[in-house]
Amino acid sequence: MIKIAILGSTGSIGRQTLEVVDRFPEELRVVALAAGKNRQPFLEQCLQYRPLIVSLATEEDAKWLKAALAEQNYYPEVHFGLDGLVRVATCEEATVVVTALSGAIGLRPTCAAIKANKQIALANKETLVAAGEYVTKLASEHQIQILPVDSEHSAIWQCLHGEEKTSVRRIILTASGGPFRQMARADLAKVTPQMALKHPNWTMGQKITIDSATLMNKGLEVIEARWLFNLDYSDIDVVVHPQSIIHSLVEYGDGSMLAHLGMPDMRIPIQYALSYPKRWFNDLPRLNLTELKGLTFEEPDLERFPALALAYQAGKQGGAAPAVLNAANEIAVHAFLAGRIGFMQIPEIVEKVLENHKPTGINNLEEILAIDQWARNEAARIISNC
Amino acid sequence: MIKIAILGSTGSIGRQTLEVVDRFPEELRVVALAAGKNRQPFLEQCLQYRPLIVSLATEEDAKWLKAALAEQNYYPEVHFGLDGLVRVATCEEATVVVTALSGAIGLRPTCAAIKANKQIALANKETLVAAGEYVTKLASEHQIQILPVDSEHSAIWQCLHGEEKTSVRRIILTASGGPFRQMARADLAKVTPQMALKHPNWTMGQKITIDSATLMNKGLEVIEARWLFNLDYSDIDVVVHPQSIIHSLVEYGDGSMLAHLGMPDMRIPIQYALSYPKRWFNDLPRLNLTELKGLTFEEPDLERFPALALAYQAGKQGGAAPAVLNAANEIAVHAFLAGRIGFMQIPEIVEKVLENHKPTGINNLEEILAIDQWARNEAARIISNC
Repeated sequence: MIKIAILGSTGSIGRQTLEVVDRFPEELRVVALAAGKNRQPFLEQCLQYRPLIVSLATEEDAKWLKAALAEQNYYPEVHFGLDGLVRVATCEEATVVVTALSGAIGLRPTCAAIKANKQIALANKETLVAAGEYVTKLASEHQIQILPVDSEHSAIWQCLHGEEKTSVRRIILTASGGPFRQMARADLAKVTPQMALKHPNWTMGQKITIDSATLMNKGLEVIEARWLFNLDYSDIDVVVHPQSIIHSLVEYGDGSMLAHLGMPDMRIPIQYALSYPKRWFNDLPRLNLTELKGLTFEEPDLERFPALALAYQAGKQGGAAPAVLNAANEIAVHAFLAGRIGFMQIPEIVEKVLENHKPTGINNLEEILAIDQWARNEAARIISNC
Repeated sequence: MIKIAILGSTGSIGRQTLEVVDRFPEELRVVALAAGKNRQPFLEQCLQYRPLIVSLATEEDAKWLKAALAEQNYYPEVHFGLDGLVRVATCEEATVVVTALSGAIGLRPTCAAIKANKQIALANKETLVAAGEYVTKLASEHQIQILPVDSEHSAIWQCLHGEEKTSVRRIILTASGGPFRQMARADLAKVTPQMALKHPNWTMGQKITIDSATLMNKGLEVIEARWLFNLDYSDIDVVVHPQSIIHSLVEYGDGSMLAHLGMPDMRIPIQYALSYPKRWFNDLPRLNLTELKGLTFEEPDLERFPALALAYQAGKQGGAAPAVLNAANEIAVHAFLAGRIGFMQIPEIVEKVLENHKPTGINNLEEILAIDQWARNEAARIISNC
């Protein structure tokens, strides 16, 4: 029996994680849950899975939840805020923590989970983007595996399974190219949030859907891959694959490529992160190769999608630059969703914040969080002057 | 240093094996070579690689070779015929035997090599087709690994690496579909050997090229896969993939598929069979995904290519049926190449021989060879009555 804590249980990955739990009641048990502001769905999850520790974003919602649960004669530990996330992440009974939060808020609870010797099923890529060096070192010290949940990284991880790292020539992350893959640059400037929220292949949260449309998501994945698999940026390539059937590839030094294919269904990589190193049979829809219209590949267009180039640049610069990139992007994406800036201003703002950032190394979590805060403020300042 | 013996060194796989040896002089050394009738190229190979034991098909050629080598003051053991193949396959210094012979003639030397505790790099699929149960049992008793060289089986093997067999839902062998993939059945009857010898993607020997055109090659590969990976026929599927870029796939029970991609270059799987479990960096041409026109998949058409269905049928029947299928096919293909029968008569003759075969089990090598001979005679008899 694998006992899991989920950070972000009402989000897209969180809900799909619970679907995986539903399929494998003998193998998986939920012992702690945390969510943000979706208190009603969270209440229902608590009543269904009966975790020992639960947490919501605000004190008010936590009180409401506690009262609602008491009405059902159910009295788990109820927490709130960042401390609540940390409490859920360090739940004594949990062996695996699924970090399905969106954004840099996942950083502190993820580190707390590692220090408490929990395996991490990482769906919060911002943790490795903002603090890859710090977090991977911490995981290594605690002999904790960080298991990828992102479909691309799960694909790479599966293609690397059983192979020696020295055999790898490069990894190739596939990108759908997003909804605007073929849109002219002039038209990209007119993209609305509504348009950007329609991803062609995957159903995901708002933040990641916008990141997919700008290709920033792929850029963040490049940085995530650098830390997950301990590779140089020169050994990480991106190829646009509009059908999202090949989820990523590994090229070996002998000329062989291994690829992971599947339906665009996050329950597959979520399940693998929980079942690893085993694989459990399930009844999820299967990929039928002969129904596919043809699998194609293109070079990404860095002119129209500068966010990907910015991410490589920040990654190669290292130090605090990826944390700056990530924080500035979060603010810019929220401003775009709020209708305050245009689609092509997202990478422009990130680029400006990176330019204004004074390169620095990172020694501890506090420094990362301080840089993260500086970048958010700087992005907000630039946006308010737009 | 890995010391190798090659059976069939002047054939397509044999020559490409020597190219791999040329690339890795520190890792690989040729200690024994055997060929058939190509005595002049074989002489050159002997002078270049200086094996300890060599063999040709006939006594006359062996005498000629011995004299020619003596002129160069070089005196290896020189043998001929089936005994010569067995002598090369059991060369004391060899640790790996590459069985690159075409046809059922590879059976006895392969078994001799296994009994002499050599690893087998198997390019002679007819060995497992004709005698899969016997040969795999023998290999298991001698704790010998049979390492696939066929690109499809190498692909499957790589996709299975590090995984548990119980996780596998099915394997999918890809087939190019051959040069007549889209040809109407009426036109197939008019195919000449010249037309059939032009394979769209791979350069191979004559026998396997014709087998690719009839899809019998894929059928033989299905039977080979059944024994190499110990699977039921119901767990082995074939899909037509005209581009020959995905060399085969494994579908796991959790919905993940792993695939092997690469250039259609046999040196890649040959090298992997020799370097396994390591991978050696080489300078072979690389696959460039963005240059591909699109990867497509189709169901194989068993109406137009009945050989594939015959192979499944013989495989499922078991016992001596696959040996009969294989032997009858060899005779039919040679008759087609000699212009004695038409293209569509190849599967017809195989089917008739299978019908005339009285089902029987197989207990030893002699029984297999007797059945093999019966099927050859029966095929020849049917052809002579055509």
